[in-house]
Amino acid sequence: MKARFITIEGCEGSGKTTILKKLCAEFKEKNIKFFATREPGGSKISEQIRNVILNVENTKMDYMTEALLYAASRRQHLEEIVKPALNDGAIVLCDRYLDSSLAYQGYARGLGIDEVYAINMYATSGFLPELTIYIDIPVEVGLERITSNNRDVNRLDLEKVSFHSKVREGYLEIAKKYSDRIVTIDGVGTPDEVYERVKKVIFERL
Amino acid sequence: MKARFITIEGCEGSGKTTILKKLCAEFKEKNIKFFATREPGGSKISEQIRNVILNVENTKMDYMTEALLYAASRRQHLEEIVKPALNDGAIVLCDRYLDSSLAYQGYARGLGIDEVYAINMYATSGFLPELTIYIDIPVEVGLERITSNNRDVNRLDLEKVSFHSKVREGYLEIAKKYSDRIVTIDGVGTPDEVYERVKKVIFERL
Repeated sequence: MKARFITIEGCEGSGKTTILKKLCAEFKEKNIKFFATREPGGSKISEQIRNVILNVENTKMDYMTEALLYAASRRQHLEEIVKPALNDGAIVLCDRYLDSSLAYQGYARGLGIDEVYAINMYATSGFLPELTIYIDIPVEVGLERITSNNRDVNRLDLEKVSFHSKVREGYLEIAKKYSDRIVTIDGVGTPDEVYERVKKVIFERL
Repeated sequence: MKARFITIEGCEGSGKTTILKKLCAEFKEKNIKFFATREPGGSKISEQIRNVILNVENTKMDYMTEALLYAASRRQHLEEIVKPALNDGAIVLCDRYLDSSLAYQGYARGLGIDEVYAINMYATSGFLPELTIYIDIPVEVGLERITSNNRDVNRLDLEKVSFHSKVREGYLEIAKKYSDRIVTIDGVGTPDEVYERVKKVIFERL
């Protein structure tokens, strides 16, 4: 199956954003029609939902509430942004999609991968990417990159290292479970090295 | 089964709020420990979610997004407000709960009663009221009451009459489907008349 809706997944600091930038530059150079996005991706409604999720004051947020809010935001972004771009003939590159919920809420928060998958099957009406790139790195490498990058700190960044380790475990389990859709890429190395690995997989599937 | 978690349902202007006030006064007089609430009911997180749902600018909101947001708000209110009150030994009276989603999003919006029920089973982990009072009134009566009450207008009030008719149809179908839990009360009459009907059903089940 040719890939038209492609998602990129990984832990904090895995280098997703850098890889996506390089990918966009390459698509542009090769004159391939594409659209790069990430939830909430310009949907005002998804953005409002995201603000609720990431509000540092919302310490009482139940994990299931969090999972449902991500699913709601995903639905809106999918209908308002992703599907119109696909219908317009573009290849859509999306930074994070349902696998993030499976790894973060399903596995790391302990809600269960299958439970969160079911919620997201409702939320997306089963609309899955043809290809998902999971960039795998050791947790320390990712957190090191975040700290040195001096990014804005949001509620999820404040989680303990043990939480981020669980997220990685979750991703590895999901990548095994949905191996027909997810390709794991070794994220250790220079940005150029990692990019070449990703590029190879993606261009084989276009 | 004795009823400890009791929900009240009905279309706009069905008189739920008036009935609930009378019920609270009676519980107080009879020294019955109770807690009256409605989503978002004092949960700051649920309130933020509700603001997204009812924001009149969010005209692009997808129906499934709406259903997921209600489910998220419900989850948070349930965990943060309802369960602690029940654990504290109170009878909880709740103005609207999952049946509102079944009638509004499931039936009237056309998402499907079973689909929205499934989402809410996840959201509530299957936590259902022992008793639900559905106050049934003809749509015109309800809308007439709203208009003369001069309430703040929110996004849902702006819906057409045909939508509110569908909501009522939805409620009637749900009441038939879950007849073990839902009792339909004729909402036509003076507040006192309707209240006596509700009171009879509730006090039989306490």
